[in-house]
Amino acid sequence: MRLMKKVAVILAGCGFLDGAEIHESVCTLLAIDRAGASYQVFAPDIPQLHVVDHTRQEPTGETRNVLVEAARIARGNANPLSALRMEAFDAVVLPGGYGAAKNLVDYAVHGAACSIDPEVERVLREAHAMRKPIGAICISPVIVARALGAQHHPLLTIGKDVGTAADLEKLGARHQEAEVDGIVVDEANRIVTTPAYMEAERIGQVYAGVTKLVERVLSMAG
Amino acid sequence: MRLMKKVAVILAGCGFLDGAEIHESVCTLLAIDRAGASYQVFAPDIPQLHVVDHTRQEPTGETRNVLVEAARIARGNANPLSALRMEAFDAVVLPGGYGAAKNLVDYAVHGAACSIDPEVERVLREAHAMRKPIGAICISPVIVARALGAQHHPLLTIGKDVGTAADLEKLGARHQEAEVDGIVVDEANRIVTTPAYMEAERIGQVYAGVTKLVERVLSMAG
Repeated sequence: MRLMKKVAVILAGCGFLDGAEIHESVCTLLAIDRAGASYQVFAPDIPQLHVVDHTRQEPTGETRNVLVEAARIARGNANPLSALRMEAFDAVVLPGGYGAAKNLVDYAVHGAACSIDPEVERVLREAHAMRKPIGAICISPVIVARALGAQHHPLLTIGKDVGTAADLEKLGARHQEAEVDGIVVDEANRIVTTPAYMEAERIGQVYAGVTKLVERVLSMAG
Repeated sequence: MRLMKKVAVILAGCGFLDGAEIHESVCTLLAIDRAGASYQVFAPDIPQLHVVDHTRQEPTGETRNVLVEAARIARGNANPLSALRMEAFDAVVLPGGYGAAKNLVDYAVHGAACSIDPEVERVLREAHAMRKPIGAICISPVIVARALGAQHHPLLTIGKDVGTAADLEKLGARHQEAEVDGIVVDEANRIVTTPAYMEAERIGQVYAGVTKLVERVLSMAG
């Protein structure tokens, strides 16, 4: 009997303008489940950088917590990122959304000079050191570049966005363009990336790319 | 050339304990897109009954707006339900979540004696009168029963939950059990229902049932 593979999914809140992109997050959970694996959601227990009214696309005065909001996507079952030990998981996947670039790193504010949440950095370095595959969706390759770029020069995609691609290279990564539903695979570093809403105009394109990413991450974890 | 079918999707917020169930909502949008149709999200522009911390499963003191939170799932593109005219759409689908039973009707508080949001009632009666198909997921068949039960006695499923099934019948509907990924079809009233998280333990089960529902709704609209 083969044990079910377990994937840690790191979310940055709930909603593309201040948290995790919801379609990308749910497509990740769906693709993991449909591939016969299981998932556990994690998020940092920290305040969001912003709360944004998604109808007006403007900041509100509210304060919300990244973990508490991420738990909406996880149907309540979200754990603090500080509790994630990669030895208990076969792989880790990071969906995108502006929240990933605001709450997991501060790339949305500081660009290539961004800092990274210490727990996000620890988990990605732990995964890399244990040779557990890492999947990063949409803008999240920036997080991988920030955590691993200087030492390991991973090959990543952000789709076709020239400015973000240049920032990835400033962070020590190498960039390769990808089509909206394509993936880029760094076999040596065991990292898979897909553009999702960096390029997508429809949710079906997101699901296609995320499914390829999840399937490749799981096969690498095999 | 055949025109793309257009589906109105009514959301009750964002998060299963106080708003729309996120997996059901995203699976609905994904199934519509993968079936080659388009969608527009609508939600009532009203305060949520509760805001619930999804990690503790307890109410917080916050106030949030149903439309503003639903817009997170719609990537900002959500319109007030008062703007929905069924002549502009081929079908309407209602995902579930406690928010559907708190914000679109107050079934979560008053059971079979519930009242219904006037715009939700108008839209469902308009759809029925125009013979546009209605899809209702999870707990949302209660809303359809409240809007149409007394006059039209629709055949609906809530899965296998005996208490809720009895309430549907008190509201004038007829109940038929369904498996987790099954659908119940009322051809005469053009209503399709599926249990989703009334029964599901995994997101893949939700996607399977919701896909069947969306495909049937779209073929009825043909």
